[in-house]
Amino acid sequence: MQIAMMTDFGLDDIYVGVMKGVIHGIAPGTPVIDITHQIDRQNVRQAAFALRNACAYFPAGTIFLVVVDPGVGSTRKPIVVQTNGYTFVAPDNGVLSYALAQFSQYTVVELSNPAYHLPEVSNTFHGRDIFAPAAAHLAVGVRLDAFGPAHDKIVQLPPLELTIADRLVRGEVVHIDHFGNITTSIGHLRWNAPERLILSGVADMPVLAPSAVVTLNGHRVPGIRLSYSEALRGDVLALVGSSGYLEIAVNQGSAAERLDVSIGDRVELQVGDVNAAIRD
Amino acid sequence: MQIAMMTDFGLDDIYVGVMKGVIHGIAPGTPVIDITHQIDRQNVRQAAFALRNACAYFPAGTIFLVVVDPGVGSTRKPIVVQTNGYTFVAPDNGVLSYALAQFSQYTVVELSNPAYHLPEVSNTFHGRDIFAPAAAHLAVGVRLDAFGPAHDKIVQLPPLELTIADRLVRGEVVHIDHFGNITTSIGHLRWNAPERLILSGVADMPVLAPSAVVTLNGHRVPGIRLSYSEALRGDVLALVGSSGYLEIAVNQGSAAERLDVSIGDRVELQVGDVNAAIRD
Amino acid sequence: MQIAMMTDFGLDDIYVGVMKGVIHGIAPGTPVIDITHQIDRQNVRQAAFALRNACAYFPAGTIFLVVVDPGVGSTRKPIVVQTNGYTFVAPDNGVLSYALAQFSQYTVVELSNPAYHLPEVSNTFHGRDIFAPAAAHLAVGVRLDAFGPAHDKIVQLPPLELTIADRLVRGEVVHIDHFGNITTSIGHLRWNAPERLILSGVADMPVLAPSAVVTLNGHRVPGIRLSYSEALRGDVLALVGSSGYLEIAVNQGSAAERLDVSIGDRVELQVGDVNAAIRD
Repeated sequence: MQIAMMTDFGLDDIYVGVMKGVIHGIAPGTPVIDITHQIDRQNVRQAAFALRNACAYFPAGTIFLVVVDPGVGSTRKPIVVQTNGYTFVAPDNGVLSYALAQFSQYTVVELSNPAYHLPEVSNTFHGRDIFAPAAAHLAVGVRLDAFGPAHDKIVQLPPLELTIADRLVRGEVVHIDHFGNITTSIGHLRWNAPERLILSGVADMPVLAPSAVVTLNGHRVPGIRLSYSEALRGDVLALVGSSGYLEIAVNQGSAAERLDVSIGDRVELQVGDVNAAIRD
Repeated sequence: MQIAMMTDFGLDDIYVGVMKGVIHGIAPGTPVIDITHQIDRQNVRQAAFALRNACAYFPAGTIFLVVVDPGVGSTRKPIVVQTNGYTFVAPDNGVLSYALAQFSQYTVVELSNPAYHLPEVSNTFHGRDIFAPAAAHLAVGVRLDAFGPAHDKIVQLPPLELTIADRLVRGEVVHIDHFGNITTSIGHLRWNAPERLILSGVADMPVLAPSAVVTLNGHRVPGIRLSYSEALRGDVLALVGSSGYLEIAVNQGSAAERLDVSIGDRVELQVGDVNAAIRD
Repeated sequence: MQIAMMTDFGLDDIYVGVMKGVIHGIAPGTPVIDITHQIDRQNVRQAAFALRNACAYFPAGTIFLVVVDPGVGSTRKPIVVQTNGYTFVAPDNGVLSYALAQFSQYTVVELSNPAYHLPEVSNTFHGRDIFAPAAAHLAVGVRLDAFGPAHDKIVQLPPLELTIADRLVRGEVVHIDHFGNITTSIGHLRWNAPERLILSGVADMPVLAPSAVVTLNGHRVPGIRLSYSEALRGDVLALVGSSGYLEIAVNQGSAAERLDVSIGDRVELQVGDVNAAIRD
């Protein structure tokens, strides 16, 4: 059983290492995988989106330890959530919203039993004192109901923006990656024929790749391409990113710098006249 | 048996990965935990403070591999230190001072036996050629005295500043973390009653939380709070950090930026009139 | 069997974590070692040099998973290469050139068998969909020829600049590390007597350390030293770096900042009058 960690702690301090030390003390030899520790500070929504896109690539049984916790020491509850396949340990602040939306059913328990906390619990570092010990105890087989009482209702984030009116889809920029690629909330897109995509985010909607147009921060990007290499080096293009969302990129360059885009900026996709295309 | 690494090598180069390659060659399957590799370049004191705060959270038997080594290739000795519980592999430059201060007794051996070095030892990367092999050989059970002769006296850093005069405690800024939280040398603080702390750094001294005042870089921060969430979002507060030191923070913001503070800046804590409070 | 990863994905996103999730699903419990994920974006040459210097420190049997892949989604082939000792999984874009130059013989196979890809292969993230699964399947014992047909000719990068004319060696800056140390293509250098080095890059050539002179960006650095500590703190020096290349450094400072040097800058080494020295 492996533990997969996601935090906003960064790698400059001892925080992540100390959590792993605690895990090794309770569950020696358990593999711990870092998803990322570079979530923007206290950005619960960014973490929720990242977790949603990462978790499906981990094997069944994985325990996700997610600590992006601006409310540490306040009244927000520490929880553990079990789905058919995965277990999530996190603060109840919405950070699990988008990952859990993929499951029809799950059980939630509050991490209130002090037997599974460190002996001294600080008010500033529950990652070390409550969340890491919980993940480690789960890894060695402690049952869900031992951690505390059932927790009825968990905090839900508002969904990412995605509206469709006529042939215009509106969304927002939700992530800018290490390469400067811009991920939008417009998804999930999948190819179902040459030059033709299906957008399944709201209702299934066909998108005609060659005549689709993406508009972002005053820039107009025509067409949706198959891969970065379909654009010349340095040119802007739109394509389907690796998690199924509409992505704007520059082949071997940074789209975020070129288009001066920030998280939260509005994006529009005109899906093209599919009927016209079919009539042709 | 696990190895926990701390270096100032950063993550941009192959250095840390190569040390792990060496470890896996000697001690296959040994878990290696990164505490951090982002200690400021050649900052032995910062590493010593970080190690002191990290090590207690690791299980007994952990081998700490600590390479912050501005004197590599000079006459400073590579050493291994064994305490009741932990083993430390490091250059003898004071980097173990604060961690070892917690132990009444330890054994020190010089890493001079070439049988436990790599066949070729460079003058610039003892992390790879001497320290990583030593940690790995310890992990597979090589006894301390096989590595070399006893080493009598190890280098000690001067202690962190902490002076108490009347009801005024003076210290210094020792760390600024990823969130901009400011850690001071004033510790260890623990709550022993509501609104009342004990400062145990020099002698046990009561601190009255509501009437205590922290002064830092011309700023005056009244009161010591229980958690970040006791301040409004964006407000400055003082509290007890997760390692027991006085910390100055901004709820969901960066205190270091707001107060324009640097490592080494002076901090004062007026502990409040405890007797007055008790008389009330 | 362990997998050692090198990518240009950085650590801010979920990419590296997701690749490890995929590996754990196929080859549970396989140790995964990060060499670095901070290769400059799409810099195949920098990755090739780093891999060359890192790989010899890993035990036989290591599977290197190298994803620096500006041509993802284009016609470049994904390949696996087996040498006497190591296995490399990478795009066929030259990134293995310098590492493979150390082996007289190797077998190359194209990763074309979809049975060893993820069920859905994107056009933007072959690290997750093709390369990580291949490394994991190799770790659990899948034979090389199961992955696809033999691949005859692999892409080779031009060698690093290294020319010798009379007693002048010319090279280039190939890497600047976390400390600001400048690594050049002039190598491999090894000490074979006090004050005397052998340069073995092209032909064996003696270098007289005290009278050698390095010229770089208009700066003249006299002598080749044994270690950083032979220079005063803050002084520029030349020495043999930990991978055997000529390095220019500042003792406890950054040579790259001091000398305002960039990757690709020219470097010259005058090797000194060895005969004169011998005649003395």
